[in-house]
Amino acid sequence: MTARELAGKELAARIRADVAQRAAARRAEGRPARLVIVTATDDEASAWYVRSIASAAAKTGIDCDVDDLGPAATAAGIADRLMALSGDASVDGVMLQTPLPPGVALADVSGAIDPAKDVDGANPLSLGRLAAGLPAYAPATAAAVVALLDEHDLEAAGARAVIVGRSAVVGKPLAHLLLDRDATVTVCHSRTRDLAAVTSTADVLVAAVGRTHLITPAHVRPGVVVVDVGTNPTPDGGLAGDVDPAVAGVAGALTPVPGGVGPVTTALLLQHVLD
Amino acid sequence: MTARELAGKELAARIRADVAQRAAARRAEGRPARLVIVTATDDEASAWYVRSIASAAAKTGIDCDVDDLGPAATAAGIADRLMALSGDASVDGVMLQTPLPPGVALADVSGAIDPAKDVDGANPLSLGRLAAGLPAYAPATAAAVVALLDEHDLEAAGARAVIVGRSAVVGKPLAHLLLDRDATVTVCHSRTRDLAAVTSTADVLVAAVGRTHLITPAHVRPGVVVVDVGTNPTPDGGLAGDVDPAVAGVAGALTPVPGGVGPVTTALLLQHVLD
Repeated sequence: MTARELAGKELAARIRADVAQRAAARRAEGRPARLVIVTATDDEASAWYVRSIASAAAKTGIDCDVDDLGPAATAAGIADRLMALSGDASVDGVMLQTPLPPGVALADVSGAIDPAKDVDGANPLSLGRLAAGLPAYAPATAAAVVALLDEHDLEAAGARAVIVGRSAVVGKPLAHLLLDRDATVTVCHSRTRDLAAVTSTADVLVAAVGRTHLITPAHVRPGVVVVDVGTNPTPDGGLAGDVDPAVAGVAGALTPVPGGVGPVTTALLLQHVLD
Repeated sequence: MTARELAGKELAARIRADVAQRAAARRAEGRPARLVIVTATDDEASAWYVRSIASAAAKTGIDCDVDDLGPAATAAGIADRLMALSGDASVDGVMLQTPLPPGVALADVSGAIDPAKDVDGANPLSLGRLAAGLPAYAPATAAAVVALLDEHDLEAAGARAVIVGRSAVVGKPLAHLLLDRDATVTVCHSRTRDLAAVTSTADVLVAAVGRTHLITPAHVRPGVVVVDVGTNPTPDGGLAGDVDPAVAGVAGALTPVPGGVGPVTTALLLQHVLD
């Protein structure tokens, strides 16, 4: 058995086409869509990700500025900048890239992003609104997981969904999105005992933990749908997921890395800028 | 086998004694602690609950006003009132009692409660901050579940916790509190398939769904710790939990209804007013 591949490229292309059309209309009206990415790190992987977003934005006709505050930025400095951008009428979306400088927590500064411009759902208020069932931007990665399930006609309602990873940017918001879709949701993490016993109960398994090939064939039952959120750098400069490729021999469906959640995430981030 | 009773009365009494001491100190300083409960319903059970909070507040030396806007109140009217109370320096805590008038959703108006006065954690921002690991008031009921586990030396870390009920006032915030305690957390609800199969995996089972005796011996495995959040009115004017009393023959520990989560909830709500 080889798992059906849950590719994200076609879906991402469709979303980008929609974005490009709306961005062109905005430009024709003389008010081009604009995303500002605030960074405060010299982390290489982060810089690579920011460049890929900027490049995708340019291709879809969204103006994208990278506002680099440098790795010595303070929490107050970052929050001030986010507040200024939130109040700037020429800016549609504000994204704060991680990692942040030592001692600066995302949750401590992301509250300065206006929820209406919080295109990557970083403000705790966005997460709270999501949990309360109010309109809010979900973090693009969490939204991408649900969009991929929809794309491939995989029903979340009634399914047992197991999420490995409890971060405020993926695991927790995704739990709320899947609960909202009527899945029965379990969140696992590094302190979970007998992880394989829990993940084996899943109809839909989402790995979002950032550890290369943590999920092995021993963690899944035959036929399960596996969504791999991991993008771990490999020694040869590539990307590896959180899911061991051998899982494809057991699972019913599996997202590729790269080419699965990643491109959909970027496309949805851009779509949020236009929304 | 008969389950150990996880009583809440002693814990509640200790919390109230602490509250009374701090409330007396505040009164001696000439600025008595003050809670305002906003209601907009003529629901009988709600009125009973509000009276019980007001009575507990009076006994601990907290001034408690009930601000009844009546069942015809509008969302705008309720939000305006919550905003005014949030800005009133004489008010320490603001609580909005449910049910609300038809067409008014708690999440739509509770954003008007200043998070610093949101003693029952109703503002979506409070929930988001909780999820993001920031200081915030949890809804008193969710906080009471965790306090009861602590009181009886029941370790959440590493445990499989199953919560039945996905409300924004109990199930969801409790999921975040238990994740924060390193439990592996599953949230079930009305659309969960084969509920008994899921609840049987629990080391700690929390029933917070509002359906009398939904959880039967068939839903639990021997030795499980069961916390019953349900307070369903009985025809004879009493209270029944979400857990069938026969579960005591299988479970290792069980909270009574009444006398379990309820009194701890009220005591914690008052403690939040002083915090």
